[in-house]
Amino acid sequence: MAHRMLRRRISLSSAFLVAAILWAALPLHAEDGAQGWLRYAPSSVSGIPVGYVRMPASIVNLDSSSVATSAENEVLRGVRSMLGRTLRTDAKIPDSDAWVLGTAEELAVAFPEYHPPTLAPEGFSVSVLAAQGHQYWIIAGADARGLLYGTFCVLSGIARGESFPAMEGSESPAAPIRWVNQWDNLNGTIERGYAGPSIFFDNGAVRSDLTRAGEYARLLASIGINGCTVNNVNASPQMLTPEMIRGVARIADQFRPWGVRLSMSVAINSPQVMGGLDTFDPGDPKVATWWRAKVDQIYAAIPDFAGLVVKADSEGQPGPSQYGRTPVDAANMLAAALKPHGGVVLYRAFVYNHHLDWNDLKADRARAAYDIFHPLDGQFAENVIVQIKNGPIDFQVREPVSPLFAGLHRTNEAIELQVTQEYMGQARHLVFLPVQWKTYLDFDLHVDNRPSSLKDMVDGKTFHRPLGGYVGVANVGLDTNWMAHPLSMANLYGFGRLAWNPNTTAETIAADWTRLTFSNDPKVVATVTNMLLSSWPIYEHYTGPLGLQTLTNITGPHYGPAPQSQENNGWGQWIRADHDGVGMDRTVATGTGFLGQYPPEVAAMYTSLKTCPDDLLLFMHHEPYTYRLHTGKTIIQTLYDDHYKGAEEAAGLVRAWQTLDGRIDPERYQKTLALLEYQAGHAIVWRDAINRWFLKMSGIADDQHRIDNDPNRITASQMQLDGYAPIDATIWETATDGKAYACKDRAACTASAHLNRPPGWYDIAVQYFDYRQGASTFNLMLNQQPVATWTADNTLPGQAPNGDTSTRYTLRGVPLRPGDVLTLEGHPDNGEPAPIDYMEITPEASSAPGKPRP
Amino acid sequence: MAHRMLRRRISLSSAFLVAAILWAALPLHAEDGAQGWLRYAPSSVSGIPVGYVRMPASIVNLDSSSVATSAENEVLRGVRSMLGRTLRTDAKIPDSDAWVLGTAEELAVAFPEYHPPTLAPEGFSVSVLAAQGHQYWIIAGADARGLLYGTFCVLSGIARGESFPAMEGSESPAAPIRWVNQWDNLNGTIERGYAGPSIFFDNGAVRSDLTRAGEYARLLASIGINGCTVNNVNASPQMLTPEMIRGVARIADQFRPWGVRLSMSVAINSPQVMGGLDTFDPGDPKVATWWRAKVDQIYAAIPDFAGLVVKADSEGQPGPSQYGRTPVDAANMLAAALKPHGGVVLYRAFVYNHHLDWNDLKADRARAAYDIFHPLDGQFAENVIVQIKNGPIDFQVREPVSPLFAGLHRTNEAIELQVTQEYMGQARHLVFLPVQWKTYLDFDLHVDNRPSSLKDMVDGKTFHRPLGGYVGVANVGLDTNWMAHPLSMANLYGFGRLAWNPNTTAETIAADWTRLTFSNDPKVVATVTNMLLSSWPIYEHYTGPLGLQTLTNITGPHYGPAPQSQENNGWGQWIRADHDGVGMDRTVATGTGFLGQYPPEVAAMYTSLKTCPDDLLLFMHHEPYTYRLHTGKTIIQTLYDDHYKGAEEAAGLVRAWQTLDGRIDPERYQKTLALLEYQAGHAIVWRDAINRWFLKMSGIADDQHRIDNDPNRITASQMQLDGYAPIDATIWETATDGKAYACKDRAACTASAHLNRPPGWYDIAVQYFDYRQGASTFNLMLNQQPVATWTADNTLPGQAPNGDTSTRYTLRGVPLRPGDVLTLEGHPDNGEPAPIDYMEITPEASSAPGKPRP
Repeated sequence: MAHRMLRRRISLSSAFLVAAILWAALPLHAEDGAQGWLRYAPSSVSGIPVGYVRMPASIVNLDSSSVATSAENEVLRGVRSMLGRTLRTDAKIPDSDAWVLGTAEELAVAFPEYHPPTLAPEGFSVSVLAAQGHQYWIIAGADARGLLYGTFCVLSGIARGESFPAMEGSESPAAPIRWVNQWDNLNGTIERGYAGPSIFFDNGAVRSDLTRAGEYARLLASIGINGCTVNNVNASPQMLTPEMIRGVARIADQFRPWGVRLSMSVAINSPQVMGGLDTFDPGDPKVATWWRAKVDQIYAAIPDFAGLVVKADSEGQPGPSQYGRTPVDAANMLAAALKPHGGVVLYRAFVYNHHLDWNDLKADRARAAYDIFHPLDGQFAENVIVQIKNGPIDFQVREPVSPLFAGLHRTNEAIELQVTQEYMGQARHLVFLPVQWKTYLDFDLHVDNRPSSLKDMVDGKTFHRPLGGYVGVANVGLDTNWMAHPLSMANLYGFGRLAWNPNTTAETIAADWTRLTFSNDPKVVATVTNMLLSSWPIYEHYTGPLGLQTLTNITGPHYGPAPQSQENNGWGQWIRADHDGVGMDRTVATGTGFLGQYPPEVAAMYTSLKTCPDDLLLFMHHEPYTYRLHTGKTIIQTLYDDHYKGAEEAAGLVRAWQTLDGRIDPERYQKTLALLEYQAGHAIVWRDAINRWFLKMSGIADDQHRIDNDPNRITASQMQLDGYAPIDATIWETATDGKAYACKDRAACTASAHLNRPPGWYDIAVQYFDYRQGASTFNLMLNQQPVATWTADNTLPGQAPNGDTSTRYTLRGVPLRPGDVLTLEGHPDNGEPAPIDYMEITPEASSAPGKPRP
Repeated sequence: MAHRMLRRRISLSSAFLVAAILWAALPLHAEDGAQGWLRYAPSSVSGIPVGYVRMPASIVNLDSSSVATSAENEVLRGVRSMLGRTLRTDAKIPDSDAWVLGTAEELAVAFPEYHPPTLAPEGFSVSVLAAQGHQYWIIAGADARGLLYGTFCVLSGIARGESFPAMEGSESPAAPIRWVNQWDNLNGTIERGYAGPSIFFDNGAVRSDLTRAGEYARLLASIGINGCTVNNVNASPQMLTPEMIRGVARIADQFRPWGVRLSMSVAINSPQVMGGLDTFDPGDPKVATWWRAKVDQIYAAIPDFAGLVVKADSEGQPGPSQYGRTPVDAANMLAAALKPHGGVVLYRAFVYNHHLDWNDLKADRARAAYDIFHPLDGQFAENVIVQIKNGPIDFQVREPVSPLFAGLHRTNEAIELQVTQEYMGQARHLVFLPVQWKTYLDFDLHVDNRPSSLKDMVDGKTFHRPLGGYVGVANVGLDTNWMAHPLSMANLYGFGRLAWNPNTTAETIAADWTRLTFSNDPKVVATVTNMLLSSWPIYEHYTGPLGLQTLTNITGPHYGPAPQSQENNGWGQWIRADHDGVGMDRTVATGTGFLGQYPPEVAAMYTSLKTCPDDLLLFMHHEPYTYRLHTGKTIIQTLYDDHYKGAEEAAGLVRAWQTLDGRIDPERYQKTLALLEYQAGHAIVWRDAINRWFLKMSGIADDQHRIDNDPNRITASQMQLDGYAPIDATIWETATDGKAYACKDRAACTASAHLNRPPGWYDIAVQYFDYRQGASTFNLMLNQQPVATWTADNTLPGQAPNGDTSTRYTLRGVPLRPGDVLTLEGHPDNGEPAPIDYMEITPEASSAPGKPRP
């Protein structure tokens, strides 16, 4: 007996020790973003918040589950860190004030006075109970997960300066499916991941150190996420080997205390490729048998396994079509294997032919999901959920809502949103996506002429479905701050908040995240919130406005400008630009008929030019460049103007951030500033490339004659060159006259310009190309006087001069007078020939902080 | 010819490149203290200071010396970093506004309108010149060093928000000798250094990487220091080998562009020990010949070598006394060798017998310097300077001025101040020394009944001496922030400011340093300035007040409390405490006669109990404990009260610093906070040890009965122990009842206490001993619930339980109620037996920020 008690003591001790070590370490943590929004920053020097002066000193946890233990430890940790107090843990309700944690049921047993609220599964209630002459601060969950979510809600409130009584109330999640997908490959890379290698896999196996996996689960739990798919939807059949299942079970062990259930993506041809069968035909009983055995094996290792995610018949993935079978056949086969264990299938509707005939004016990739899945409505098993991307194409800067949502009345649906910024600047540009997501979730599809917002459909309300919800493609990586750009974590946070409650406003999400991530300083909250809220429209302005999609290089890295890549290939992201007009005619009468997939009211709205919104016009219609929008301005001038506006707005983000100098820790301030400055430079690359391309296409001049008419610009071809020689830019519009100037077969080359500027202070920008490999060095000299040196050591996604690699270095505050000679000296490195485009010399920006006009 | 021009261009280029790289790196630097007070922080977001909007855009440097080039580069760097502008360098005065740098002579040639001011060597003048229709911002030096000092003065002004015209004026240094001594050993250690290994030496040779040496010279130049002695005054004869001279010449190369001349300490027996002579008798011609040849060899390697520093006949060092020679014989021999090259000898007056008979009531170490050197006045060569410590003992917390300063009328004098905190908390306690130094410099010695302040003597004014000045024992190390404690650099800065102008107030120094080091935020400036100004009195209160000297362990590391170590040994730092009274009688009538060394007015002031200041009383007099001070309070009660007051004041420093949370970068904020918290704990160790010792000595109770009567304290002997057993504290008064409790031969031991405190929030302090070696781990548990864990991994100077190692860990905000059991669990490590003393449980401090009383 004594032995047993000792063991218990040690085990308790080690659990608490972990927490204690974390508390001790917290105040010394550099602000590196590792804590995300869970920084638990100490209350300000103005003192413990008045609502916490008489805080109960004890905590009682009525629930013995590991998830409830996480909740209790989290209260101890958060209170210690934010309020500087160490709560005592009591085994039973003390005869004094106390925090009490438990399920509503457990609380009702403990307190006769407690009236349990009505809660959906995973919901929670926060309340102050007066009983036995004491005050009890109650966090009650419908279940252990609900308790954990309630705990994080309270700790967020403390961090944001709320009093405990102000948090009284109940919340329940909008939908049961609140998952993230990670597109992690077994070799440790992440498809469309921009923040380092996988936290799960390395070199074909599960990592030995899974610390980050546990920390990730804690972050996910804090925003109500209850599932995580750990591997790429382009799944390796090796995922299902016994060794891999044992490894993945170790990840699940890290997830479990945080209530996050693990799921896997599977290759539908696994029975054949790794299982040794001669087929993977879903209609073949031995295939079904194989899957049943495999699923049983998974559940033996992971009893709370959540289910399987399937990408099939899509972008080269094998699928049931190979055997003449439908998605229903494949999905239901897997569902049958999962059903005895309570697991689900998330079957992706992202199925389309990527060898479409671009000469066929009726062909339309946007139609694919509806065309394939709508006829199958009502045939999917009860534990199958069709996972539908928000729009009909692929996470573009703007698309309409996918019509398939309204096309499945008797099928469970989940919306797939992309947290990782694949088409959205790849964590180098600031794009706060909840603003965009809200336009989808709040969109009214008018099903059966009744108000029917998208969020009500995925929540299962519209069609009374038992299952449904939200899947976010997150793709965090091993980078200390999870998502590379310090502001990108706002997207993961926002995804969780919307999955829990899609009625939350983007403003609330942005402000809450800012408070938790940076500070409650009103100036910081207002500035960062405004930056976040404006960031998506800004990005749209300088990329692909008017419903053109993002206009990135879709056959390349999906990053820089490459409008032509949309056209003349089988991928079907066509914008059908020609000399007269631009846009995809998707009307029923004259176009692809895509609009006919929508309920009649929505179809009518998009079909009529009178009611079709400008921002989606060219997604729906092909119109002449001279067509006038609702604004009265022509399409072509709007394209030009939007790009100039967007680039200016991007520069404004830098200035807005600079007003926070001194209000944010130097590490995150500087890191963010550098990224915003890069973005402002890249916005100019975007602006110039897209405008050049449309100018060439349309032959219609910008009414302000700005395109390639930059009086401040000196192109390499205008400079005196020593060693530099022209090479073709791989995408002509991404460099001046389609040429970059490279330094080949030399240790160094120079490009010099004689200036003739009026005396004054200037900013000098140098536009160069920074390949992924190589770290060329540049020196800038004014009359032989070196004034700046920098290294092109960014790891942009390209190895050629183009819109992916074009980069701007700006030296501010340089005095010039007539007769000055400016010399740029490039030193190539490792195959990167120090390529350059132009220099741009502008009078010092009067609006920049610290830089009034002389 | 073309070849020559190319070479010049490349050389220019590389020099500028270094500067350019530094500019680029600056804004991204973490605030790690590496830049010291030369951070050149960007102007705030409120914009470029109005005085710099119309700043000249060009800079012309009329002086071609390397020191002038440093000045020019420094302007470029500072303006770039602080004002965001890149000045252009012009070869000659442009037809536009310009900064112009040069010597006064060069400026007078360039501008007929320029009237050169009268400047002492190394002085400078800042002015705005209107000429040829333009404005010229002029920095003129009496010579290149003066130009560099003027440049740093201007850049400091910009950093502190001053306009250029507001800086117009001239300055000249108070004295020609403005040196630092480094006590670096050739093996890379530093005697009395607390910030890592030597920046100069490693493993018996000069370091290969001397980057830090150059950076140090830049910091020194920025405060007007013109000399640096690179090796310990306890000098190795190996310093003079040809290899070492070549190595040291490389250090001099780093110093030279910053106008810092290198000097060496030499062992006077070098001719014998490393030179192979059979004697080092200064009277022997072959010894003098040896030194001449050696000095010639040094100058061949280091043409601007500054001179030699000599510690002889002191603390075991060899000296001329061995041959019946005097310091004059030794110093003049060296001076003769140096004279042809313009070098000087700094001969230290720190000569005393450290085997004094403590039974002899007439013996007095304080007399030694005067007794030895006063008779030699007038005999030293013109290029010899006698280097005299500020007080007659050894850098104690308070001493009177050394009477030798007034005893040498025909001898050059320099004052030796200690920047490194040997007796002042060793860079773990905050002690801002300029406040103390000012009490010396401003002290009026009344020579010949005329006002004659110490500063006027060392400046050479009083006795019209051509040479003299200031030597600071700096001892910076390889630690990134140079001096370990982020606030300790204020002492080096302050030393330079006072050596340049001893009339500068401590308030000005503290405020300027704070602005340059942290920020111009008025709250930061006011708070840090007040902390600095109050820190020396605070340290005196909890160590050795009333002129008792510091009371550290003088036979050990000179750190923690060990009052008995002053007594009964040959070192002569006696305080002569017995059962009746305390203090050294140094009067002429009844004591050692030391006071007779002062000029009559000063001697009379100290001799009379009516006029002797309380703060030096016991340095001058032996008095009964019941003697009443000018305050009316007895000596013994003053000792007790000062120690309680000092410990409280040290805690106040923590609270003051905490009000700056969010106004200082997290890295330096946290590092400083941790040190201030350690200091507050160690101040309690000091208080208790000194008070116990005097209570035992005097037998007179504290009138508030506080000593060893702490109602909140639970000593280890009062706890329930499992494994812990008593061991003797090596210094009895530094642990409760002279005992520490150690965990020996066990993996872990525990000490538990049953508490019976009224319910409420408490702070729990654990007093333990943290040896230099070993990293014991402690866990604190409340009713088996772990509430804190920490590791005793500090590197304090001791390997036993005593006042050097006694350390306090405080866990704040713990709720207690009657019946609680508090358990401390210690895990020994590497010979450190997790030793403990007591726990102290106090109601939560209501005055602490964030911690109002419940």
